[in-house]
Amino acid sequence: MKNKLAGRVKEMENKELGDLMRIIGRDDLISFAGGVPSSDVFPVAELNKITEDILSQRGKEFYQYSSTEGNNLLRDFLTEYLTERGLDIERRQLIITSGSQQALDLLAKLFINPGDKVVMEQPGYVGGIGAFKSYQADIKGIPVQEDGLNVGLLRDYLEKLAAGGDSIKFLYIVPDYSNPSGARLSAAKRQKILSLAEKYDFYILEDTPYSELNYYDSRLDYIKTYDTEDRVILLGTFSKFFVPGFRIAWVCGTEQVVKYVSRAKQNADLASATPGQMIFYQAGKEGLLKKQREKIAPVYRTRLETMSRALDRYFPDSASWFKPQGGFFFWIELPSGINSRELLNQAVEEKVAFVTGKAFFIDPEDGNQYIRLSFSDTKPEKIKQGIKILGNLIS
Amino acid sequence: MKNKLAGRVKEMENKELGDLMRIIGRDDLISFAGGVPSSDVFPVAELNKITEDILSQRGKEFYQYSSTEGNNLLRDFLTEYLTERGLDIERRQLIITSGSQQALDLLAKLFINPGDKVVMEQPGYVGGIGAFKSYQADIKGIPVQEDGLNVGLLRDYLEKLAAGGDSIKFLYIVPDYSNPSGARLSAAKRQKILSLAEKYDFYILEDTPYSELNYYDSRLDYIKTYDTEDRVILLGTFSKFFVPGFRIAWVCGTEQVVKYVSRAKQNADLASATPGQMIFYQAGKEGLLKKQREKIAPVYRTRLETMSRALDRYFPDSASWFKPQGGFFFWIELPSGINSRELLNQAVEEKVAFVTGKAFFIDPEDGNQYIRLSFSDTKPEKIKQGIKILGNLIS
Repeated sequence: MKNKLAGRVKEMENKELGDLMRIIGRDDLISFAGGVPSSDVFPVAELNKITEDILSQRGKEFYQYSSTEGNNLLRDFLTEYLTERGLDIERRQLIITSGSQQALDLLAKLFINPGDKVVMEQPGYVGGIGAFKSYQADIKGIPVQEDGLNVGLLRDYLEKLAAGGDSIKFLYIVPDYSNPSGARLSAAKRQKILSLAEKYDFYILEDTPYSELNYYDSRLDYIKTYDTEDRVILLGTFSKFFVPGFRIAWVCGTEQVVKYVSRAKQNADLASATPGQMIFYQAGKEGLLKKQREKIAPVYRTRLETMSRALDRYFPDSASWFKPQGGFFFWIELPSGINSRELLNQAVEEKVAFVTGKAFFIDPEDGNQYIRLSFSDTKPEKIKQGIKILGNLIS
Repeated sequence: MKNKLAGRVKEMENKELGDLMRIIGRDDLISFAGGVPSSDVFPVAELNKITEDILSQRGKEFYQYSSTEGNNLLRDFLTEYLTERGLDIERRQLIITSGSQQALDLLAKLFINPGDKVVMEQPGYVGGIGAFKSYQADIKGIPVQEDGLNVGLLRDYLEKLAAGGDSIKFLYIVPDYSNPSGARLSAAKRQKILSLAEKYDFYILEDTPYSELNYYDSRLDYIKTYDTEDRVILLGTFSKFFVPGFRIAWVCGTEQVVKYVSRAKQNADLASATPGQMIFYQAGKEGLLKKQREKIAPVYRTRLETMSRALDRYFPDSASWFKPQGGFFFWIELPSGINSRELLNQAVEEKVAFVTGKAFFIDPEDGNQYIRLSFSDTKPEKIKQGIKILGNLIS
């Protein structure tokens, strides 16, 4: 078979992700690996009620195809939702995608010729690395600090490129509680990055899965709020703060961007699944999305703080991390001399799992010294227990 | 924006499809355009019951992520279903995709380098043309007869290529009641095509959306039934004979093929939506899929025969077509001198819609003389009325 495969396939290997999926499949472990929202907080009863009402009144529609751009009621609701968050947009600037992962795939397909340069945070979202590599992008990773991307290093890189007559297609960034770093991009840096996009002529893919998962502070404005030159393509999803099983997310850009994404989506899956679109619209209309945002914050905050205290207590001083203010993840630099893969093997023997840092680097070898710990789907007592085991293994 | 787009985007234009989608959105027309299954025959009450049972018992699972390969219960059911249809396969040879369109996208991504040669029926499925063009394939269309692809012309093409040291990556074919031609590939031709794949070393993407939509004959065996060299990758879906809104289909190949498709799917949308996977499994287990197959045949047969009689009566002898034995479509060659686009404009003024042949040709201009008429989602009296209007316009 191999001699028939396209050249891009060799860029699509992801051994780390395969390992991750196998670990996630096991339920005998205390797992800090997954990074999925906890089904403990799903509003099951409320969603069941909404679904049953839809079934009894609009059953035929529930089972039929949607349009490529998505359900218009949901697009109108999203227009309202984003307007409340400070954007000035219309329905035709929105398209529904099958999760934000599909948005990344479609945008990569639209923008990337083999060898084209793109920039992302490093460590950065594994699904972004995967999507961009699969179109053979030349990805540059810019280090992340507690207040987000190192903007000075980004500027240096762009300047150097410009001096050689070169440029990037886009910057991909998760500004709020990024995966895996937990970093939130400061308001000042949001402005600076937008200025750089204008100066050096590139798009920003602003991906916001965790933007409703603030456990202490209020939200910061989207980068897109200040986007007077239409350089920001905003990606959003219900998967992290609400429920993920429907695979419903959205892309917001100019009408032209939506047209191109729609054309690509037509070839990719025709349309997103109908049920989630109808259910999310109704959930939004009934105020369930807002209610859910308030319901989950204390639950995840407790888990975050439990992990934070356990790390302080059980991890050696030679490991380093910061306490995130939202999202799902702690990002840990291991003491020198400890290999994350070996640590994982030992941890799994003691029934604890996590993800090694390798999946989140353009070159996986650069991630050897790091691990990602997710607190989202583990109950507090298990968090304490698991971190103690890991701490003992490291010490 | 245009100067930032990838080279492949210029291959992704599809003006015809845009027109089609706009027509489908109008409900003031007698539409032969859509080609979607009729929601008149959806087993709404039975599916509602199944969904409500799942909600009350497994609500958390219903709203959570699935795995990339898909729900194992559904994969096991499909293994059984395909075994009953004569295949010898295991679960690990199956992966769930977000509709068959996603399978086409992922397989194109895995196999096609820009300029690689692939073959398909002509006229052929618009979504196949779109997916392959979007990866910049060099697509050869082979004409279709009432008993399917012209195998002699396929052989000639392959021989000519081989003489020049060249070959194709795959043949894409819809053997049962193809879209738009309505042709069914004969049993003899199925064998011949498989022999050619072995001789000329290519894969066959066997796409079977209409294989449960036989209104007269019994089913023919899948090409894959006789596939001793693992050259056939089988695509199947519930969308046409059951319900399409969940976007759930499957790919069946070797374990190796499934691994590659899974890797590509991970980057494309992580996983398919959960609800449809759980509901289809239960529907299969309860025998609802089989029941549905029996329920729909007489409904669609009546519509097919109504259209057939109306065409005989109202269309001039200078138009030509054959009566399909299953599926959703009649494919009509217009009398010379009639342009399908002009006919469409006039028809829409008289509140009748269809699709011009242009969407189904590699070079749209070759389809000027043809139209596709779908009978699937139009009631018999409306079919008669609409065909009469069209016939008068043509005459």
